[in-house]
Amino acid sequence: MNTNKILALFKSELAVINLGLESFGDNLRKEGVKVVQPEWKPAAGGDPAVQEALDRCLGPEGDALAAIAAANQEAVGRILKAKPMIIGVGKALDTIPGYKKNLILHSGPPVTWDRMSGPTRGAVIGALIYEGFASNEAEAVQVAASGTIEYAPCHHYAAVGPMAGIVSASMPVWMLRNDAFGNLAYSTLNEGLGRVLRYGAFGDDVIQRLRWMETSLAPILSEVLAVTGPIDLRSIITQALQMGDEVHNRNRAATSLLIRTLAPHLVTLKRTPEEIAAVLRFLDGNDHFFLNLSMAASKCSLAPAEGLKHSSLITIQARNGTDFGIQVSALPGRWFTAPAPMVDGLYLPGYTAEDAAPDIGDSVITETNGLGGFAMAAAPAIVQFVGGTAPMALDVTRRMYEITTAEHPQYKIPALDFRGTPTGIDLLKVLDRNILPVVNTGIAHKQPGVGMVGAGLVKPPLECYQKALTAFANEAL
Amino acid sequence: MNTNKILALFKSELAVINLGLESFGDNLRKEGVKVVQPEWKPAAGGDPAVQEALDRCLGPEGDALAAIAAANQEAVGRILKAKPMIIGVGKALDTIPGYKKNLILHSGPPVTWDRMSGPTRGAVIGALIYEGFASNEAEAVQVAASGTIEYAPCHHYAAVGPMAGIVSASMPVWMLRNDAFGNLAYSTLNEGLGRVLRYGAFGDDVIQRLRWMETSLAPILSEVLAVTGPIDLRSIITQALQMGDEVHNRNRAATSLLIRTLAPHLVTLKRTPEEIAAVLRFLDGNDHFFLNLSMAASKCSLAPAEGLKHSSLITIQARNGTDFGIQVSALPGRWFTAPAPMVDGLYLPGYTAEDAAPDIGDSVITETNGLGGFAMAAAPAIVQFVGGTAPMALDVTRRMYEITTAEHPQYKIPALDFRGTPTGIDLLKVLDRNILPVVNTGIAHKQPGVGMVGAGLVKPPLECYQKALTAFANEAL
Repeated sequence: MNTNKILALFKSELAVINLGLESFGDNLRKEGVKVVQPEWKPAAGGDPAVQEALDRCLGPEGDALAAIAAANQEAVGRILKAKPMIIGVGKALDTIPGYKKNLILHSGPPVTWDRMSGPTRGAVIGALIYEGFASNEAEAVQVAASGTIEYAPCHHYAAVGPMAGIVSASMPVWMLRNDAFGNLAYSTLNEGLGRVLRYGAFGDDVIQRLRWMETSLAPILSEVLAVTGPIDLRSIITQALQMGDEVHNRNRAATSLLIRTLAPHLVTLKRTPEEIAAVLRFLDGNDHFFLNLSMAASKCSLAPAEGLKHSSLITIQARNGTDFGIQVSALPGRWFTAPAPMVDGLYLPGYTAEDAAPDIGDSVITETNGLGGFAMAAAPAIVQFVGGTAPMALDVTRRMYEITTAEHPQYKIPALDFRGTPTGIDLLKVLDRNILPVVNTGIAHKQPGVGMVGAGLVKPPLECYQKALTAFANEAL
Repeated sequence: MNTNKILALFKSELAVINLGLESFGDNLRKEGVKVVQPEWKPAAGGDPAVQEALDRCLGPEGDALAAIAAANQEAVGRILKAKPMIIGVGKALDTIPGYKKNLILHSGPPVTWDRMSGPTRGAVIGALIYEGFASNEAEAVQVAASGTIEYAPCHHYAAVGPMAGIVSASMPVWMLRNDAFGNLAYSTLNEGLGRVLRYGAFGDDVIQRLRWMETSLAPILSEVLAVTGPIDLRSIITQALQMGDEVHNRNRAATSLLIRTLAPHLVTLKRTPEEIAAVLRFLDGNDHFFLNLSMAASKCSLAPAEGLKHSSLITIQARNGTDFGIQVSALPGRWFTAPAPMVDGLYLPGYTAEDAAPDIGDSVITETNGLGGFAMAAAPAIVQFVGGTAPMALDVTRRMYEITTAEHPQYKIPALDFRGTPTGIDLLKVLDRNILPVVNTGIAHKQPGVGMVGAGLVKPPLECYQKALTAFANEAL
């Protein structure tokens, strides 16, 4: 090395770029030294075994990376081509293939009754009362633990459920078809906010609402769909993103557009004006009505990307209030789980973080599809619901481009000058860049029977992605 | 001056700030000199007489400025307190005080038949056929010029009309009340885009639509308002600004919210399902349906700020395709006019700037109320309709804070981290800072009978503001 250059270095002003522990930089700053601290963390969460697995995927030897890139292009191409349509509404038992009378679906990865979170237990209790398997909470708890009830994740039935995500045999479900690939997906109808089953409430008011949804709302929606024909959800989501929704925690525009679409046909049904008015009042009173459709549309869109050899795209993220779990395209059906984290959010009056259950619900399927938190830049007003500032909403979306594979050709964000939503989360990028997918979410009370207490942002547990990457490197290359 | 400093100046690198003519800077740039060209123009448009008038308002002598500031605070306070409510729908003849059978209202400042623009003439022809005063175009032109028809600006009747803004006796109008002050305002019902009367079209299709609006739409809206009671437009506008509307050229969210509000009650009216369905289809098919309400709400909100001694706030801006005119609070009822400018915009397929009529319509009342172009930052998607880029939409709103007096406490813009819309245009600031109010607008064909050809942004003529300032300095201090 040139000695003059070294001497010059010692004479010149010291300026430091500090990586990792900020305290090193703090000490230098005290001495008057200029220190820059880039937002950087070691790859793979700093875990040497995971780093080694990541190196095998990204490394120069062989053509692993080329095969992965090609598989990911195929996978994300399928996601971008998706055309989710509402094609019907029916009872879960009659509509979801393989459904049984004693089957209860829940959100997230598999979980047994003894490990279920408070809100999930509350919603199971409510579902057992609603189905007539029990007449009160104590009976329901007995039945729930008796072994006569079969539990399974919604995702195992091509379904998705917000929060507790409970589906039981008599509950009406939306039926969606992805017109690009023909696959179907299902979700319940949204009950509104506050004291509702999906947040773990199971009072008489909750059960009565579910019954009205089963006996009046669902048949009327089914009849109106027979008149309208299939409804194009890609079109509604595209418009809603230009109207301040990210279609996870903000669905006011999408719900409004759905109402506009249905209303002219609803009035022509052979129903009493009061029945139709009750449906329109319910829809108008529930800005989140579109959420379950946005979720089912996302499930519908992602499913064709599952099971592609070599693809490191994440096809499922889901939580049940106990565990957070993900699935990767190349390893279909395999859950990689870790304990569900707590949510950083805003609380309804009277509640605090003390009351909160851990992160829960299948609604993170919207983020997995490039919407929700990933499209937060389209919905700056959402910060009033989940916390933060409007510039933060832009930053969140911009960061998600770092870990995704493509920009959606239809779902565009005006505030980013019509850039497409960041779509197709690449597990390798998540680990290589140490950027976790962002999630907007509601917060349920940790005790059964209470309901919603807030909403916020959550960071998924790194461990899920580390486990998935290790398995991917070992089995999918 | 210190000789050393002067010598030092000549030795140092030359860096120039150039104001005014850019060519001076260009010559220096050719010589390799660094030149900064701030976006600056001389105050008062560089007119010495106007500058002298401005100096008298802003100058240090006397307490003119204090009196103006106090009056403007009172004026803008009234605008911010406004609570515009829809209270009814009725025929212009029965609803607008002082209406007569042979009265035709038009947009903008006063204009006689011989000076009317193409689209205004087209709309007058259509109105005369619609009212039965003529059976075809040739007859209508004769009647229009015969002296039997009385013409007046909408604004002279507390009304506002988009584009040509034609109101005739049988046309249904919205009736709004400003609940904070009790004053009323009126506007026609929006017909949709394309071949419509307000853009100067008058074919059979146009007349038939107007008749259906008179005989079916308006009575049904009137009946439903009797059920809903007054509808709070401040609330709808507040929400719409969080949903990508600026409620001038983008009204999709506000129209959707209005539909949601009305639909549950529409179905309970004693009307056939087909009549109700036709109304819902019409509303769903016309994203601009809310425009006329946004305009009347703005008129309603601004009127109490008229006629305040010493106030330099602009209370009316309006154009008729021939002239652009404004009014200032301290000089109520006085129009200050200049020739209407051309619009810089995007054209519908098959049309170019060659086809365009000059700037037209009362819809700039929304900008005068801090909405429309002033709230463009709330509606980045609008650039697809009027041209420009999403960052430009933010810049436009930011610039308007320079010429306004307050930020609206309800009308907030998420993308500007919930800053209130720039409200209360101060004539003195417009001249002192040489920043003209921005306007989003539609573009009509210059010939009668054609209709809409595009949409864009327009700069009002400086001359209006110069004339108004001179009169203000002479008469209102």
